[in-house]
Amino acid sequence: MTTTSPARTPAPRGRPRDPALEDRVFRAAIELFGQKGWAGFTIDGVAKAAGVGKASLYLRWNSKQQLLFDALGARASIDVSIDTGDIRSDLRHLGSQLLGMFWDDGGVTYMRLVVEGAVHSEFAEHRDRLTHPTIAAARQIVRRAAARGELPPGTSPAVVLDAILGATIMHVAVTPVELREAAREQSDEYLDELVDLILAGVRRAV
Amino acid sequence: MTTTSPARTPAPRGRPRDPALEDRVFRAAIELFGQKGWAGFTIDGVAKAAGVGKASLYLRWNSKQQLLFDALGARASIDVSIDTGDIRSDLRHLGSQLLGMFWDDGGVTYMRLVVEGAVHSEFAEHRDRLTHPTIAAARQIVRRAAARGELPPGTSPAVVLDAILGATIMHVAVTPVELREAAREQSDEYLDELVDLILAGVRRAV
Repeated sequence: MTTTSPARTPAPRGRPRDPALEDRVFRAAIELFGQKGWAGFTIDGVAKAAGVGKASLYLRWNSKQQLLFDALGARASIDVSIDTGDIRSDLRHLGSQLLGMFWDDGGVTYMRLVVEGAVHSEFAEHRDRLTHPTIAAARQIVRRAAARGELPPGTSPAVVLDAILGATIMHVAVTPVELREAAREQSDEYLDELVDLILAGVRRAV
Repeated sequence: MTTTSPARTPAPRGRPRDPALEDRVFRAAIELFGQKGWAGFTIDGVAKAAGVGKASLYLRWNSKQQLLFDALGARASIDVSIDTGDIRSDLRHLGSQLLGMFWDDGGVTYMRLVVEGAVHSEFAEHRDRLTHPTIAAARQIVRRAAARGELPPGTSPAVVLDAILGATIMHVAVTPVELREAAREQSDEYLDELVDLILAGVRRAV
């Protein structure tokens, strides 16, 4: 997570949305959640980290979950409507978005979503409303390829996506900090190897 | 993480180690870490959760990291010295240990190790001393198979293990709570599919 330059004029109460300010608030929200988790995440904390008055945040967000999930929707979501007509290029595009997101913050935001959901059940419900449609849409990528005849009919979208999502997050998680920059530069080669392995496996294993 | 029955007699100061008490302390330590993370993890908190006097814990552990890493070593480590002579059975055995561990606590302990290491750098150093030898040993499983001629010479141990470790943890993480028991019962089928896919992929993709 990186910091952004401050908005030129802080938006006073009742003014129309200021995209630069909103971006700053969203970045601060995601970073605070990564650092402190759900229990340590508060609207006041986000206001302080973003350097904005908390009154302006309360004007727009009634609850901390609304603020966090708006921030995640705006800044930590991936495009799963990929449909190039070629499964290799669809999966490369999906993997590349995931890997870029995970390199940016060490996969911490995603792992926090899992960890905090296991500990706080009301958080898990909010999270699942955000993530389940994404998972379902990602599985469609594999189903469409099977329908086109690019993959065998019995191909399991779940196993293919567990492997792509799981391998990319583990690749980032197990790379020692001092090797991270070098590994990030090799992202394309890693994805080539991973996607080719999964596709070759699916074509033979079914 | 499940609870255990209490030890019959709490060990007073200076007595020899009591395995039942130790087990109770280690379970409490891992569960507390999963719930509260590194910042919320304290020796006093473990004593309270385990229902033992904190003095007896301080007698044995000088620091909270020592206590946590002893607990992880005893209860959340996997056997990576697997060497059956057959790569499919080695990876099935490895995957089965991982999946069992992740089903027990939703993968929370492992994800906490990643998340807390990204947030607290001194924690990351302790963690890496525990996890790096395990990762290195696991990679040897793949290297030995390549040396035996079971896998092509250029096979990347990193990609194979990222995929096994990553897919198992994601499988657990994305399974909705209400489907978890049913999915857990299908663990063998899941591992068959995953390991066969990875092996078929490796044999073709190199």
